[in-house]
Amino acid sequence: MVNADAYELGTNRSCIRELFEYGLMRARVVGKDQVYDFSLGNPCIPAPEEVRQTIETLLRETDSLTLHGYTSAVGDYETRQAIADDLNRRFDAHAQAEDLFITCGAAPGLCAVLGGLSVPGGKVLALAPYFPEYKPFTLGAGLEFDDVKADVPAFQIPFDALKEALTPNVVALIVNSPNNPAGTVYTRQTLSRLSALLTEKAAEFGHPIYIISDEPYRELVYGDAKVSFIPKLYKDTIVCYSYSKSLSLPGERIGYVYVPSAASDSKAVYGAVAGAARKMGHVCAPSLWQKVIARCTALRPDLLSYDRNRRALYEGLTEMGYTVAKPEGAFYLFVKAPNGDSIAFSRLAKSHDLLIVPGEGFGCAGWVRLCYCVSYDTIMGSLPIFKKLMDTL
Amino acid sequence: MVNADAYELGTNRSCIRELFEYGLMRARVVGKDQVYDFSLGNPCIPAPEEVRQTIETLLRETDSLTLHGYTSAVGDYETRQAIADDLNRRFDAHAQAEDLFITCGAAPGLCAVLGGLSVPGGKVLALAPYFPEYKPFTLGAGLEFDDVKADVPAFQIPFDALKEALTPNVVALIVNSPNNPAGTVYTRQTLSRLSALLTEKAAEFGHPIYIISDEPYRELVYGDAKVSFIPKLYKDTIVCYSYSKSLSLPGERIGYVYVPSAASDSKAVYGAVAGAARKMGHVCAPSLWQKVIARCTALRPDLLSYDRNRRALYEGLTEMGYTVAKPEGAFYLFVKAPNGDSIAFSRLAKSHDLLIVPGEGFGCAGWVRLCYCVSYDTIMGSLPIFKKLMDTL
Repeated sequence: MVNADAYELGTNRSCIRELFEYGLMRARVVGKDQVYDFSLGNPCIPAPEEVRQTIETLLRETDSLTLHGYTSAVGDYETRQAIADDLNRRFDAHAQAEDLFITCGAAPGLCAVLGGLSVPGGKVLALAPYFPEYKPFTLGAGLEFDDVKADVPAFQIPFDALKEALTPNVVALIVNSPNNPAGTVYTRQTLSRLSALLTEKAAEFGHPIYIISDEPYRELVYGDAKVSFIPKLYKDTIVCYSYSKSLSLPGERIGYVYVPSAASDSKAVYGAVAGAARKMGHVCAPSLWQKVIARCTALRPDLLSYDRNRRALYEGLTEMGYTVAKPEGAFYLFVKAPNGDSIAFSRLAKSHDLLIVPGEGFGCAGWVRLCYCVSYDTIMGSLPIFKKLMDTL
Repeated sequence: MVNADAYELGTNRSCIRELFEYGLMRARVVGKDQVYDFSLGNPCIPAPEEVRQTIETLLRETDSLTLHGYTSAVGDYETRQAIADDLNRRFDAHAQAEDLFITCGAAPGLCAVLGGLSVPGGKVLALAPYFPEYKPFTLGAGLEFDDVKADVPAFQIPFDALKEALTPNVVALIVNSPNNPAGTVYTRQTLSRLSALLTEKAAEFGHPIYIISDEPYRELVYGDAKVSFIPKLYKDTIVCYSYSKSLSLPGERIGYVYVPSAASDSKAVYGAVAGAARKMGHVCAPSLWQKVIARCTALRPDLLSYDRNRRALYEGLTEMGYTVAKPEGAFYLFVKAPNGDSIAFSRLAKSHDLLIVPGEGFGCAGWVRLCYCVSYDTIMGSLPIFKKLMDTL
């Protein structure tokens, strides 16, 4: 007498979560410093000090009913205007407060966008490797889901495969750059080519094909890499953003959906996103956090420690002969299993208390994901084990 | 190319929200003190001072990664244990941390419960008058929805009508006491009779019929009225709670679902609720607020001002000859339209800048809802207008 899909989803713990719990258990047995846990993408740099100061100021200066009261379902006007200003300053986006819908993080934002675009028989594509939750989110919204196999080892876009997958019932393509799990960033050239292909196909099919751009890692980019703002390259782009990583506030659930006014049927899409959110019990995003964001849109994360980890791990592993996707963004490293079998490789690593996630769940067998949002000591301590594994295989 | 239901839901502003916006507009024209706005159920007593102090303590004593990091999807263990302790202390509930799932308020909690109970062809009943969102929440979860006409003017439960509505495909009945919009509280006798009827029907149908008890107003009760804890009277009760009203934190989105371990298939129901939430993008409830709740479960609202408003309005209106449902809980007064036509009565009131909501949207024509979470001056200023309206009709 319960919903079968929901039951399975609620009781089948993800492989990542299981590894993480295993790591906690092992830490109690062998000591925390003897476990090299690269399983979970939980930020390890604190929120900027300005966030704490802003909360204290708000508590002092704002009356309780304003600070903690219901906001409009779409979000406080001031917050939406501050985000629009930030997008305009950085990307010349021409965003307006009316284009923004404040959400409890990127995940419910994605669900609301998918729900809003859910037409009978519609299909959504994701480019492998991809965040596993895209699939239940899409199916939950009543849409079909299909993935496009990965462009290995560049992890850009495999255009021939994508072209084939673009059937007339495709309503949207989910794009995630910087990418979880690959840590790669799509070049401007890749995105321009994507724009041209989708424009051509949309004309052929006689309806828009939206890009749903999932951008929780937008600000996490290193070295010379640049993250293009996709709505500037392809007008039918809907952005889902989260402050989880950029302000290290993953538990606080604050983000937004941006439907550019230049997008096809933008007013209808915005309305449908709002309605889909309402059907799922969205009332408003947490009020205090909306007010914090309104004052903190200009803050950027201090990426020094992530960058140091990234370099140490990337250089260490490539020197040993591992094949690694070029890590330019987010906090993930995607590594080819030396023997080609990512599950066996992860299992072997686990027996050395080195916890890495096989790529199968991300739609990309043969590769493993490492989250380098860990301590530098964990990175350095893990290298001899990686060396031993390489020598074994 | 958008979802039609979602579009309609997202763009058709509710009658309540429209009245509220009209009130703001009129306030700019005639002055705020000349508008008597009883439209919106937004708490007007501030959050207890302890809430502010708790946030300040947490900001001082808890490191950023713990305070703002992801929690488990079901919620922090400490928060769940604190809520279980509170329920056990007050209601002898035998609750455990494992029975609780922390949500972004009662609305997404309801959606997750409905999603978890969504079996093919299943139906959910609500007792009129009811919170209008129950219908889109239920339909959005893929279940049928039906309402049982109101028990006028006692606003208890119309057992004959309910008995007839209890067809074999009914999986749950939504109960909301203290009630929005009627402000009434079900007596222990009513609930015992309900328990007996549902027990009988569940045995007849060969499957459980759950009560989904929506309890955002549980702590808002006046005079001699008592709110019974329904799981003690009927074991197959799933509780959806919110701190929006009890701690005056409506914008912060924090509440819980409680699936008592004594309920039929409780583990399966809990798992399905978690999975349904996951499908809608639930990651965790806001982390800071989870930690506040863990330390504030014993706080109760200071109801003096609500109670003063309630008495003044109830006594004033009954003296004039209005028929009013006995107001024992929440912050609503349900009043019979003197001419029987609630839409015409509301419209006439509106022409005097008195904003009240017709009962049609709550499934109860002929009555109007007044939210008395307003200033005492608004109450006193409105009485002469109510008098004039009564004299006119």
